[in-house]
Amino acid sequence: MSQEAVNGVPCRGKVLTLDTMNPNVKRVEYAVRGPIVQRAVQIEKELREGAKKPFTEVIKANIGDAHAMGQKPVTFLRQVLALCSYPELLEDNKFPEDAKKRARRILGACGGQSIGAYSASQGIECVRQDVARYIEKRDGGIPSNPDNIYLSTGASDAIVTMLKLLVCGEGRGRTGVMISIPQYPLYSAALADLGAVQINYYLDEDKCWSLDIKELRRAVTEARQHCNPRVLCIINPGNPTGQVQSRQCIEDVIRFAKEEHLFLMADEVYQDNVYAEGCAFHSFKKVLFEMGPEYSSTVEMASFHSTSKCYMGDIQILNHTVIIQAYLNKKDPISLCSILIRKSKRTLQPSHMYSTQNQLLFPERTAVLAALAEKARLTEQVFNTVPGITCNPVQGAMYTFPRITLPQKAIDKAKEAGQVPDMFYCMRLLEEEGICLVPGSGFGQREGTFHFRMTILPPTEKLKIVLQKIRDFHQRFTQEFS
Amino acid sequence: MSQEAVNGVPCRGKVLTLDTMNPNVKRVEYAVRGPIVQRAVQIEKELREGAKKPFTEVIKANIGDAHAMGQKPVTFLRQVLALCSYPELLEDNKFPEDAKKRARRILGACGGQSIGAYSASQGIECVRQDVARYIEKRDGGIPSNPDNIYLSTGASDAIVTMLKLLVCGEGRGRTGVMISIPQYPLYSAALADLGAVQINYYLDEDKCWSLDIKELRRAVTEARQHCNPRVLCIINPGNPTGQVQSRQCIEDVIRFAKEEHLFLMADEVYQDNVYAEGCAFHSFKKVLFEMGPEYSSTVEMASFHSTSKCYMGDIQILNHTVIIQAYLNKKDPISLCSILIRKSKRTLQPSHMYSTQNQLLFPERTAVLAALAEKARLTEQVFNTVPGITCNPVQGAMYTFPRITLPQKAIDKAKEAGQVPDMFYCMRLLEEEGICLVPGSGFGQREGTFHFRMTILPPTEKLKIVLQKIRDFHQRFTQEFS
Repeated sequence: MSQEAVNGVPCRGKVLTLDTMNPNVKRVEYAVRGPIVQRAVQIEKELREGAKKPFTEVIKANIGDAHAMGQKPVTFLRQVLALCSYPELLEDNKFPEDAKKRARRILGACGGQSIGAYSASQGIECVRQDVARYIEKRDGGIPSNPDNIYLSTGASDAIVTMLKLLVCGEGRGRTGVMISIPQYPLYSAALADLGAVQINYYLDEDKCWSLDIKELRRAVTEARQHCNPRVLCIINPGNPTGQVQSRQCIEDVIRFAKEEHLFLMADEVYQDNVYAEGCAFHSFKKVLFEMGPEYSSTVEMASFHSTSKCYMGDIQILNHTVIIQAYLNKKDPISLCSILIRKSKRTLQPSHMYSTQNQLLFPERTAVLAALAEKARLTEQVFNTVPGITCNPVQGAMYTFPRITLPQKAIDKAKEAGQVPDMFYCMRLLEEEGICLVPGSGFGQREGTFHFRMTILPPTEKLKIVLQKIRDFHQRFTQEFS
Repeated sequence: MSQEAVNGVPCRGKVLTLDTMNPNVKRVEYAVRGPIVQRAVQIEKELREGAKKPFTEVIKANIGDAHAMGQKPVTFLRQVLALCSYPELLEDNKFPEDAKKRARRILGACGGQSIGAYSASQGIECVRQDVARYIEKRDGGIPSNPDNIYLSTGASDAIVTMLKLLVCGEGRGRTGVMISIPQYPLYSAALADLGAVQINYYLDEDKCWSLDIKELRRAVTEARQHCNPRVLCIINPGNPTGQVQSRQCIEDVIRFAKEEHLFLMADEVYQDNVYAEGCAFHSFKKVLFEMGPEYSSTVEMASFHSTSKCYMGDIQILNHTVIIQAYLNKKDPISLCSILIRKSKRTLQPSHMYSTQNQLLFPERTAVLAALAEKARLTEQVFNTVPGITCNPVQGAMYTFPRITLPQKAIDKAKEAGQVPDMFYCMRLLEEEGICLVPGSGFGQREGTFHFRMTILPPTEKLKIVLQKIRDFHQRFTQEFS
């Protein structure tokens, strides 16, 4: 705090300054909302004000914002949302009976039959029951207990809450949390915020971003020198890398977690988004139970899903004492209860679908997934025709994370400008073509390699333009700096 | 972590146990969702299963859950919510034109015209503009800049975010945060969670829970011995105490904050709930600006409001560098953006009301406020007829915090049972009359005094029964232990 004297009166600086703010918050970085996105917003404003650019619109392929990309909301879910918001519509015969039935069930579980009432901290019981039945069905009948289900304001919120419970200790006893590199920056941001130690394990780009137990072992062994590794985070299907883990790999991870005495956090929010032939989603919970009681009764695990089309995210906790659950029940009270209606962002809303006979729902769902599968193939195929771009198959999720070869002169030029090379590349792409991507450095990558993350969500016709523009730009950029 | 050997094989305890969880989370207490509420839920279940009790329903007067208490949602807002959720309804002539207009304005600001799209971290711009215009109108034309407005998932979320930015330092340099006693437990919970130092200042019960600058001075002076006081939190109108601060008092607080170099946090979520004759709500922002540039250009302040009927809470930040605002913009990214549609809990939704010509809105608003004013008077009047209960006027907000005199034998009995005396009292009330209140100890109170918090929200006829039951119980309880 600066203290200068003006005319003998001490002049104090502000209470809240960069020097005096919470250092953990200062460390938080969040690439998907970083400087490149801020510049994109600025360019959009310039375009609106009539500025001349080599393009007429900015295409934001930096974030998995399905609806902004023109994806249609699922009709059934929006009907239920409208009915719950304004129950007078229950008398309206334009709404199908199954949507009304669902809305009545939800309203019946709300205080005063209003979604404006507070819910229990853990979430509305009837919704938790629905979620448990959905999980049972997904996992071939392995029982799911609604008491182990917590509804939250999205999976991000649940992941941060769980990490917060797990972080403790000081110095060499500080909790270490293993995360994949590349990673979704929610994790690094939350760990910085909590003051936990981030332990990086690298995915194998040469093997389609697969996870290698030897690499996990290397990472945990090195980390034990300076912190206390307690948590292993897995994202499957992967974000930003789009891989889908094999059943064998999941088994190996579970065995590793048991041996190394790690709490498993399985981020499975893209479980419905699997496109590649021969790939299938296997839930960590199902594999854990199929490995028998030696594992299922000892390995502690929380898995996360985001219904995300509307309503809530959920968290499922296994092998976990009732006392800790009470704390989870207590934690959420800071927000008093999960938020009852929430924004919808992803493609599907499985937990609330299983029982409905809605005529529209399954065709809508199938159409969305088929379009995404087609775009996943298209993306991989086009990128791999460009010299200097290498792209793994997009097996799942909604992103591609291609590797780009940058000429040494471009790397030098970026350093001169004080930018990391892939940020320099993405900024140039934005300025020249109006396409907004996220540099790979925002997610982490092996030293000396460069990538970007692009969502495959734009409508097919627009995606084709995006891919074409990136191809042209990459060739131009490479020539310029060769 | 316990490490025992069974047959030579080391047997390790769980990763996550009470001993190994985050100690900050363990310290968090949240009275309004504490053991008494858990017991109330249990009793409700017992009643449903046919258990015989001296009552047929549990009345939960522990929480300001307006809709659960039967308060009607505001029609206009629910219509806008339904229209935004399911835009097909924009073609429906059952909806009034002004609701459609509002919905079109909001949808027009959403990516892909869908509330399922992500918004900017700071919140949708057109909503921030509306909020700024509302604040200007409220404050008699003092300018409000939309860039200083942040939309959040409710005021609780905004308060925690702001506190988090402000907390830093270790040992004697640790940030101290001044909060009123009694307080709303969000504050103590957040401070425990952040590891900040809680500095108590006591409200003056004998003067209708007013705030005395001498008491603020005492508290900050003592605290400077062991921490670094940086923040002063004020709740006006008060929760749980229901007082409304005078303009003079607000001026004194602002002067004190300037002198002691404190960041002001003004929690004004009950600004529309003022009932008592001669009381009026004065916003800290308005008073600050009316005190002239010596104050308005130096005192740092964040004020919080919760539209809370639907849509979002908001936070307004003054005298605050752009850099810190960038961090606020960055922080929220962990949740990526504020949630677009949210639950509605309180009585009004002012920020979104100002411009509408809706025929229903103002009558509905007036009716709700008139009923609350009547219930505030009734509550004070009935409690003050009971020997051993003293009740200040409920000038604002939605709660009463009467003082109860407990016989020494009851205090001894409570200690035997390992309970604080007012918890013992409230538990007995719950078991005997089915009324759920929150013991004063959950909010903090002067040593040796006892209180409870009760919401005045139940419908008048039910509130009369509640007051009658508490009166009977108090007399019986006092006799039993005399």
